[in-house]
Amino acid sequence: VRVALDLLGGDHAPEAVIDGALLAVAQDPSVEVILVGPPDVAAALLAARGASLPVVSATESVGMDEDPARGVRAKRDATVRTIHRLVREGALTGQGDGGADVAVSVGPTGAVLAGAVLTLGRLTARPAVAVVVPTPHGPVVLLDAGATSETTPEQLVAYAVLGSAYAEALGVQQPRVGLLNVGSEPGKGDQLRKDAFALLLQAPVRFIGNVEGHDVPLGGPADVVVTDGFTGNVLLKAVEGATTRTDLPRAALLVGVDGLSVVGHGAASAADVAACVLHAADLARQGLMPRLREVLSGRREAS
Amino acid sequence: VRVALDLLGGDHAPEAVIDGALLAVAQDPSVEVILVGPPDVAAALLAARGASLPVVSATESVGMDEDPARGVRAKRDATVRTIHRLVREGALTGQGDGGADVAVSVGPTGAVLAGAVLTLGRLTARPAVAVVVPTPHGPVVLLDAGATSETTPEQLVAYAVLGSAYAEALGVQQPRVGLLNVGSEPGKGDQLRKDAFALLLQAPVRFIGNVEGHDVPLGGPADVVVTDGFTGNVLLKAVEGATTRTDLPRAALLVGVDGLSVVGHGAASAADVAACVLHAADLARQGLMPRLREVLSGRREAS
Repeated sequence: VRVALDLLGGDHAPEAVIDGALLAVAQDPSVEVILVGPPDVAAALLAARGASLPVVSATESVGMDEDPARGVRAKRDATVRTIHRLVREGALTGQGDGGADVAVSVGPTGAVLAGAVLTLGRLTARPAVAVVVPTPHGPVVLLDAGATSETTPEQLVAYAVLGSAYAEALGVQQPRVGLLNVGSEPGKGDQLRKDAFALLLQAPVRFIGNVEGHDVPLGGPADVVVTDGFTGNVLLKAVEGATTRTDLPRAALLVGVDGLSVVGHGAASAADVAACVLHAADLARQGLMPRLREVLSGRREAS
Repeated sequence: VRVALDLLGGDHAPEAVIDGALLAVAQDPSVEVILVGPPDVAAALLAARGASLPVVSATESVGMDEDPARGVRAKRDATVRTIHRLVREGALTGQGDGGADVAVSVGPTGAVLAGAVLTLGRLTARPAVAVVVPTPHGPVVLLDAGATSETTPEQLVAYAVLGSAYAEALGVQQPRVGLLNVGSEPGKGDQLRKDAFALLLQAPVRFIGNVEGHDVPLGGPADVVVTDGFTGNVLLKAVEGATTRTDLPRAALLVGVDGLSVVGHGAASAADVAACVLHAADLARQGLMPRLREVLSGRREAS
């Protein structure tokens, strides 16, 4: 499995990234990490560690303070473009030489998303960020956790389909899908939720109805929780702030783009980067991308 | 201070309510609790405890499974109407005989809100539920925590004004107001947040900009956090689910109705009911209601 890793992403780049790459490869030698960044920087860091990894050149990065879409468009040599170009080439050339199976960056999320959309294209009108929240009842896939603030009932259905495929790749059988709402009874919420509820009843997913805020950190009723990116982002950060748990999500999956792309937290340590790389490699191994394409092509896409 | 207490509210009514009332009065003899419920039920419970409290008759209750507005309208003798009628009469007759200074019920919140709106009337187009979240940096007033799923930029400004007055009554000087958003930089979020941000810059509050989900449980940047009732409800329940803290909010204040009304959690124990009653009495003592009327009359109300 080949992982294209953004050497310039995150608060502790490039050191935490390169150390994370070496940790991941040491832990699972079947994973090949391709470093994407300035060749001289990569060479110096590798030499200092007496290590060797393939490097693909990309010299620009998009900062936290930039408009992500504009920054990515302006910087043709940005790492967040090149990691996704390698994934596109990997899909074209198959499992042979060239390219990668999955892209990994530890942010900023907006720039990674913009790079993925620009380079890989979309499978659905509004791509989402899917995070895995560990709970006493098993993993809960929450999406959208912040890609798109405003969404549509049809997009919430697409999130349900994509999130179910992701949960299956995590080992959940027949994942149960819940609609995040202000009460568990049908008829709750704003017009977006009411319309989405009606569509989800007809969708090719195992829809179990409305779930509430506590059902994400506690788990139980649903394996997949769908919501708009505004509410999902607020919920995820509230859970992070409220908990002292250290097992919170360190890697998110971009869904709705035409290729595998995993984003880690900007504050990622080397161990966090390694966890992202290994999670990304697992998803690639389990054939998640062909499955995502299949489930989306199996339904008429609304935008 | 006279508190009108709903004998039929909450999962453990009427026993937890009456025991909570007696606890509160024992703890602070300057608080007078008026029980609002079926006189025979109240008399039997009081006799069994060898206690005496004034009782005002109301024989109907609105259940969790009913549409709150419809239920309250249909049940003319509902406790959630009578507790607010006493507050209205208290305001008319002043601090003398008759009526109450504040209403307390432990739910359901929707029914209490409907009873308050119907009986007391509105100060602002969309009343809100304000909760106090204890944090390491002091109390954070979060509103709307679930009264109205869809709101307007103008209503978010009204929440900022009302929430600031509430925070002042809690002892916070010059409370800082934050707009709940998906990032701290200006320009973040959906159209509602962008428009509200611009209006809040002009509003008679100490607006400090955007805050994020973790800023509610952790505190720090803002003393008052304003958001729509959908996001606020999801956030509050997520924090409740994620934390093992036992000091989470047990009482919420209805703001934007023309009278003081405090709502506790439906699962309230006797100790929780007592805490609600004492909190309500404090708010009445501090003259919160005249202050809320004053701050709202000081600005032109948009709906």
